[in-house]
Amino acid sequence: MRENYRNLKVAVLGGGTVGSEVANRLLVNREELGRRIGAELDLIGVAVRDASKSRRTSIPKNLLTTDARSLVVSADIVVELMGGIEPARELILLALESGADVITANKALLAAHGPQLFDAAATVGAQLYYEAAAAGAIPIIRPLRDSLAGDEVHRILGIVNGTTNFILDLMDTTGESMEQALATATELGYAEADPTADVGGYDAQQKAALLAQLAFHTAIPLEEVGREGITEITLEQVNQAKHAGYVIKLLAICERIGLPEGGYGVSVRVHPTLVPRSHPLAAVHGANNAVFVEAEAAGSLMFYGAGAGGPETASAVLGDIVSAARRHVVGGPGVAESTHADLPVVDPGLVPTRYQISLSVTDQPGVLASIASIFSDAGVSVETLSQSTPHDAVGEPQTATLVIQTHQASEADLSQTVEKLASSPVVHQVAGVVRVEG
Amino acid sequence: MRENYRNLKVAVLGGGTVGSEVANRLLVNREELGRRIGAELDLIGVAVRDASKSRRTSIPKNLLTTDARSLVVSADIVVELMGGIEPARELILLALESGADVITANKALLAAHGPQLFDAAATVGAQLYYEAAAAGAIPIIRPLRDSLAGDEVHRILGIVNGTTNFILDLMDTTGESMEQALATATELGYAEADPTADVGGYDAQQKAALLAQLAFHTAIPLEEVGREGITEITLEQVNQAKHAGYVIKLLAICERIGLPEGGYGVSVRVHPTLVPRSHPLAAVHGANNAVFVEAEAAGSLMFYGAGAGGPETASAVLGDIVSAARRHVVGGPGVAESTHADLPVVDPGLVPTRYQISLSVTDQPGVLASIASIFSDAGVSVETLSQSTPHDAVGEPQTATLVIQTHQASEADLSQTVEKLASSPVVHQVAGVVRVEG
Repeated sequence: MRENYRNLKVAVLGGGTVGSEVANRLLVNREELGRRIGAELDLIGVAVRDASKSRRTSIPKNLLTTDARSLVVSADIVVELMGGIEPARELILLALESGADVITANKALLAAHGPQLFDAAATVGAQLYYEAAAAGAIPIIRPLRDSLAGDEVHRILGIVNGTTNFILDLMDTTGESMEQALATATELGYAEADPTADVGGYDAQQKAALLAQLAFHTAIPLEEVGREGITEITLEQVNQAKHAGYVIKLLAICERIGLPEGGYGVSVRVHPTLVPRSHPLAAVHGANNAVFVEAEAAGSLMFYGAGAGGPETASAVLGDIVSAARRHVVGGPGVAESTHADLPVVDPGLVPTRYQISLSVTDQPGVLASIASIFSDAGVSVETLSQSTPHDAVGEPQTATLVIQTHQASEADLSQTVEKLASSPVVHQVAGVVRVEG
Repeated sequence: MRENYRNLKVAVLGGGTVGSEVANRLLVNREELGRRIGAELDLIGVAVRDASKSRRTSIPKNLLTTDARSLVVSADIVVELMGGIEPARELILLALESGADVITANKALLAAHGPQLFDAAATVGAQLYYEAAAAGAIPIIRPLRDSLAGDEVHRILGIVNGTTNFILDLMDTTGESMEQALATATELGYAEADPTADVGGYDAQQKAALLAQLAFHTAIPLEEVGREGITEITLEQVNQAKHAGYVIKLLAICERIGLPEGGYGVSVRVHPTLVPRSHPLAAVHGANNAVFVEAEAAGSLMFYGAGAGGPETASAVLGDIVSAARRHVVGGPGVAESTHADLPVVDPGLVPTRYQISLSVTDQPGVLASIASIFSDAGVSVETLSQSTPHDAVGEPQTATLVIQTHQASEADLSQTVEKLASSPVVHQVAGVVRVEG
């Protein structure tokens, strides 16, 4: 244990899906998080609007409080997951003024009042983290803020709204109309009862403002971000796009552009966009998000993953909590490379994987049975087998190629199988063995 | 200017491709980097083995020195880009002992002596950064170390060697043999004269060890990382894989696996692997790299980009330099969200983009000419035009659908065009207008 070890107090504001998920992970993973940080995290409370309405939450009752202000001023780290502008803004300012680091997933608040909040943090030397606000679980804030800090970002093309990507992808892949696809999205929980924030492009507009600000070191007033939703996209347009080799995606586009008078300006906009099928963004299906970044030195980068969801958002929030906590531990950042888990490294030969084996065999009755029994004797189960026979001259003994894919098998069992195959009179050659993953 | 402002001294070890690139960017972008950090970076020297041999470098002569030790002990930030084990290891230890933060892109050194170097950094409270060591320009270290620090990584599947991905992709897409593809890779500069480190899987093995250590908080001795190269992969296997719906990739696989005796172990291995064509990793072409991460809460994430190259590696190194420098500026991290660039936000309507316009028009002679002149009158240039005529009843007036893709046009010019199209007697309806990007 470090000399400077002390527990850090964490307050969570909001007991909804993400708030509960974060609170529970803080409690359940307390020990492991403590080892990763070098200090333990004490969850001192979860502020909810009405404790009696939070009956169904899995958060221990003694942690629930309606007095958010008292909670905030007692914490080292405040996690704002209430959403909306007020009282979230006021509570975050109170937290920062009390010297706490703040984590928020509130994109609406950051898009509307980001500069005020960042100034408040800088004034007291506190930190404001918001990895979950821009693209859910996809780490995009740290890469833009830190990894690319020595480079020049030219352009960002982002699929940052899962609902609209789900709808457009469904239209493209199944031929559903906009109306049908929206109904499916609502039914499956990908769209809310009032889908305006998503299909109208408002959610993507807020995220575009956050990404552009970070990439171009420029305050982006939300009202200057162009916004067009997907509501007017028709199946006919989707099909015409497909015919021309494109797919329609709702993109958040942030780009640095040369100005006629010299120097650079920034353009930030959200609109349905035709993307060539060969572009990495075209392969982003379902409710997934992806952010494609073009930078001067780094070239093209893409960050892909789930853009929303309780556990996914909680993952990003917890990463921010750990980052904030590590700042409080002197010599703490070294902990990041710690090897405290010290798990045994398993011999790769003992890890079962699937295999594909190609054999060239004599093409005669009974060969398949003989091959199959070699596999079953070694305890290796066959998943698929395909056979192809090349056309040889008439009268020549025929050779067939067998391609066999196995279920999971250990390397030891597989090696034994391959040895037996190689020495079998019906096998001319074991032409290749490759593992299968994914 | 901040009160605690002071210049930070940066030393670069190594004057090769990446060293020169980093040194030049430090000099050329000095002002902008200073604004991003809140302190200026003084490049105090570049250590080379033989200054006379560095005649062709673009680094100013007065910065070149062969006395690496003197340079190291005078710096706040030391950037090791020499490669190899010694004297890199010794100089990094000297730098850390003098209290400097160290940036390295040296995967061989980290894979062999990582724990010693991280311990040395932790002892003095210095930081050791190595974003460029694992996947070139792709930000993967910060996401694993910080963004996913509150989550549990289950598995990493990485394409972390560009040379082998280039070769396997070429075999898959053009049907070249392994021998031909390697020759092409060598010719195009993707493979070195002695390609063993790449095609033998040694480079990927080192990167796998780094990624696994970070993901599982466990020291991974290099010799316990399973390694199999691509040299025995035949075109026949590539084709058989294709036939079965797979593509062969050289994967670095790091996974946490349940042990028969309870608890977890780690398996780290590199081998050619069949990946289903629908998997995001299957779409990673050419010399690109990608790291696919499966985590408990975050789900599936993928990080994609260039895995090597001078400017790309320099981008990652410079990001690390900025991160290290920000640590030296009190209240510095706040600078990261600064809006110092304050670029003008351009009205999205003024940004030229390409458009796709669908029209339903009367199908009669002269219509195309009339439509084309509307475009040219508005100064909007047509890139492609495709026409489809539905089969109507005989004698009915026919309607055709025109899908037109324009070259870049401003929104103002485009709106004017659409207005004129809408009021044209031959146009029944402007069925849709969508922008095109990528």
